[in-house]
Amino acid sequence: MTEKKKASIVFFSGDLDKALAGMTIATGASAMGMEVKLFFTFWGLNIIKKKKGMGKNIIQRVLNFMNYGGADRIKLSQFNFGGPGTELIKQMMKKEKIPPLQDLIKASHEFGAKFYACDTTVALMGLEKDDFIDEVEDIADVIGYLEDASEADITLFI
Amino acid sequence: MTEKKKASIVFFSGDLDKALAGMTIATGASAMGMEVKLFFTFWGLNIIKKKKGMGKNIIQRVLNFMNYGGADRIKLSQFNFGGPGTELIKQMMKKEKIPPLQDLIKASHEFGAKFYACDTTVALMGLEKDDFIDEVEDIADVIGYLEDASEADITLFI
Amino acid sequence: MTEKKKASIVFFSGDLDKALAGMTIATGASAMGMEVKLFFTFWGLNIIKKKKGMGKNIIQRVLNFMNYGGADRIKLSQFNFGGPGTELIKQMMKKEKIPPLQDLIKASHEFGAKFYACDTTVALMGLEKDDFIDEVEDIADVIGYLEDASEADITLFI
Repeated sequence: MTEKKKASIVFFSGDLDKALAGMTIATGASAMGMEVKLFFTFWGLNIIKKKKGMGKNIIQRVLNFMNYGGADRIKLSQFNFGGPGTELIKQMMKKEKIPPLQDLIKASHEFGAKFYACDTTVALMGLEKDDFIDEVEDIADVIGYLEDASEADITLFI
Repeated sequence: MTEKKKASIVFFSGDLDKALAGMTIATGASAMGMEVKLFFTFWGLNIIKKKKGMGKNIIQRVLNFMNYGGADRIKLSQFNFGGPGTELIKQMMKKEKIPPLQDLIKASHEFGAKFYACDTTVALMGLEKDDFIDEVEDIADVIGYLEDASEADITLFI
Repeated sequence: MTEKKKASIVFFSGDLDKALAGMTIATGASAMGMEVKLFFTFWGLNIIKKKKGMGKNIIQRVLNFMNYGGADRIKLSQFNFGGPGTELIKQMMKKEKIPPLQDLIKASHEFGAKFYACDTTVALMGLEKDDFIDEVEDIADVIGYLEDASEADITLFI
């Protein structure tokens, strides 16, 4: 009767390639029956943002406009070439039958992975729970993150 | 009688946003009573550098001049726009009452977090212990880092 | 009779500075007798790619051409200045007697570190086992990575 293995992943980056790497790990871990907690902060919030909504004051609205989210809209960290690089990779993924980011989010959530948005950066960007996709369980603070992470077998910062 | 939980964080990046994320985790963990060891390497040395000093030969001095440190001078990894983006975020943080990086460094140190500078990159940049803020405990090598990290409950690379 | 400590490192980034940091940790850990597993994915594949080979279709060949690998050809994440910055750091490393990336790869491998290439990104880039340096043990999937990582004392994502 061994205890369930646990994984705790911070998604700091909003780059598509890093998000794909992290969500592939999250999906694999939850599919294997591990207890998976995902903590989204700073640009990582873009991965779990809905397309609309966005910010209480004018500065936050401008920042959220330029920095728009949605798992289908974030870009590569390099070789983006102002857009076509990201599309190219998506085409190549399709051809190789690699699931897109949105599918990894849905699958890992189905397998039981829990999604949390970091309260400090949510406040900073003027967002609220409703600005995030339904898979997001809750807004969480750093203490909540640390309680999970300190019990986890795998801790990553992406 | 449970043992203290331990966290070990490598600060590789010198970007303000990543430093904020890492130091928020370090401050929370040390405030919770965890044993926290922070290991600064490469551009992460900028987080703990004093403003002056900097390098023994001309190349190191030029590199340290361009790559200047100080927790109040490092920049965002993106949306910096050559300066104003970083100031904007700092204003937004102030408005939301989020502590600046310097306060997180001081607070985590007060709570007992230990700061180490990586010996290899310190030598590479021509720096010495005196070029770093007082919170820095010591120059440490990779073996020292690994001894800590292999006992830690949370290990992150930022 | 204590068990061997274990380290599991994901190399996502293909930047020279990050690769140096990660391979220094890997070399130190394996030299200390730890069981070290290195998992290369996305741009991190550049660290372990041979110079030639590269891709089955025209798009993959173009991407691999621009994104060429080889531990002696990858670049800094910043201060590269289109080339000279990377050379400058290499000169500075030589002067300080810091081993180059290729030597860290060889040394850690001699000490027993195991190198794996991520199957999904290997397929995405149209590569195969033969496109990688001899130190690479095998192509591995995310489940293999997770089995190792969930038993490891140190887990990092670089």
